[in-house]
Amino acid sequence: MKALAVDLGGSHATCALVEDQKVLLSQTLTTEGSKGLASLLPSLASALSKIMHEVGAQPADCSGLAFAFCGLVDHSRAKVVSTNAKYDDAPQLDLRAWCRESLGIRFEIENDARMALMGEVYAGAARGSEDVVMITLGTGIGGAAMIEGRLLRGRHAQAGCLGGHLPVLFNGRRCTCGAIGCAEAEAAGWSLPQVCRATRGFDGSPLAKEEPITFERLFHHAACGDPVALEVRERCLAVWGALVVGLIHAYDPEIVVLGGGVMRSSAAILPFLQNYADHHAWTPWGKVRLRPAELGNEAALLGAIPLLGGQTTR
Amino acid sequence: MKALAVDLGGSHATCALVEDQKVLLSQTLTTEGSKGLASLLPSLASALSKIMHEVGAQPADCSGLAFAFCGLVDHSRAKVVSTNAKYDDAPQLDLRAWCRESLGIRFEIENDARMALMGEVYAGAARGSEDVVMITLGTGIGGAAMIEGRLLRGRHAQAGCLGGHLPVLFNGRRCTCGAIGCAEAEAAGWSLPQVCRATRGFDGSPLAKEEPITFERLFHHAACGDPVALEVRERCLAVWGALVVGLIHAYDPEIVVLGGGVMRSSAAILPFLQNYADHHAWTPWGKVRLRPAELGNEAALLGAIPLLGGQTTR
Repeated sequence: MKALAVDLGGSHATCALVEDQKVLLSQTLTTEGSKGLASLLPSLASALSKIMHEVGAQPADCSGLAFAFCGLVDHSRAKVVSTNAKYDDAPQLDLRAWCRESLGIRFEIENDARMALMGEVYAGAARGSEDVVMITLGTGIGGAAMIEGRLLRGRHAQAGCLGGHLPVLFNGRRCTCGAIGCAEAEAAGWSLPQVCRATRGFDGSPLAKEEPITFERLFHHAACGDPVALEVRERCLAVWGALVVGLIHAYDPEIVVLGGGVMRSSAAILPFLQNYADHHAWTPWGKVRLRPAELGNEAALLGAIPLLGGQTTR
Repeated sequence: MKALAVDLGGSHATCALVEDQKVLLSQTLTTEGSKGLASLLPSLASALSKIMHEVGAQPADCSGLAFAFCGLVDHSRAKVVSTNAKYDDAPQLDLRAWCRESLGIRFEIENDARMALMGEVYAGAARGSEDVVMITLGTGIGGAAMIEGRLLRGRHAQAGCLGGHLPVLFNGRRCTCGAIGCAEAEAAGWSLPQVCRATRGFDGSPLAKEEPITFERLFHHAACGDPVALEVRERCLAVWGALVVGLIHAYDPEIVVLGGGVMRSSAAILPFLQNYADHHAWTPWGKVRLRPAELGNEAALLGAIPLLGGQTTR
């Protein structure tokens, strides 16, 4: 089975032709989320057509176009329902009509974290499992959940994909979502500099001499023994541990897949979180396995196959 | 439609005959959870038979027996899968066979919080809604969730019913479940005395002169202006607020039903939590309504009708 796929993030859009468990050809465009989606659509259609042409495929060979969007999506109506300062015109667009007119094929759209989960279930770290939570640790913290083979969506398309917005510190920092002490507000790329600066002794830490403060630098300086970096690293790990336990308790998975840019430091994160879950999650049936995502940037693209084929999206 | 129902708690069992949205007759037995369930079964069967006799009903008039159990239940296999120091023999029992032999009717079993949610959806505070979270604030904190008309159960029967065990303080108290900083460990009946005693000035508070420390007393002394009681009350409300937001973000409901003994002080709790959710839950589609449970001790019993009839348990 072949399919077209678009993975749209805030600063890039990857267009691809996928077949079964492989990305045959892809092209990544630089975008500006603040400029809206409507003006971007012609470039997407032309990139997809060019890819098909290069591979020698026709629209009729593809079961459809699957669109991974960085916001809340109502899959059943093929509509974006909410954005967060990126592509704010998207809820007004009839993307299904655009796809029909420009490519002449079926159109499906889903939240990007849900599509990444579907990809990892179909061809990656959670292959064959029906009970999966995915967490992406990056600038923010994304999430998605599958329960008994069914992708969790919810009445307003929010269920499962606000994983980073479970409060883990009830008296903590204000999050961009409006809540207080969300995991994302306590230990994600955008909040890390605030957390570091609020740590005693920060001014004397090598972290204070570098901009921007990233997890990569944090883990580096912690490994070198800087006490501020060590303290913040322990705090972030404990926040993520609490989040993993909360998501296990909420969704009852067998596997938690961890992805996102922060997992480049996987060796410093995964063993800690597996041990944390083993000791603190209440799972009388056994142990939840934590696994690094395997598909990287291709996860959402490969999610196109199950999204269009219906597997794992019962 | 008539049905038999049993609601089994740690220290009591209520047996009842229900019809549509009413409990026709019920009887409550005192039990000792520590003594196991097997020895209790003959009393339950005889109480149910006596109730039918008094009402003039036959087993054939009832669509079955619905059993609400205070532990993890695999509804599809009609098995208790995990207990917590109450009726620890239950996972070994063939309750379906017991019901067939002693009453000659169909048997269904479900977690008690899930049955209470089904009752409230069928005949109480969430009538007609398909997207509901229920939270019971008592000695512990119970939970259940329904998403798009489907009761959330999960692979190992844990999904939705560990609502009280979302960590809301990642560096907080150890919970009885093994996790750290669960809402239940920070603001429930069993943890309240620890929280009070850890509050500065406790020895001078009227709370220190009374045993046991209950939420009723806490709210009383807070209303009288005791600074320790005020501080602990604010802290508990903030914990519950974080929990409500976490459950809204996890399950995407339209209604959150709040029940349990602590809700006797509903006037001090509900307006705060509604306001908290209005300001801190991320729900671009509108506002989640918070409502007090309406059915009290009858909620799980009335859940028998949808459990046996299949409504709301798709």
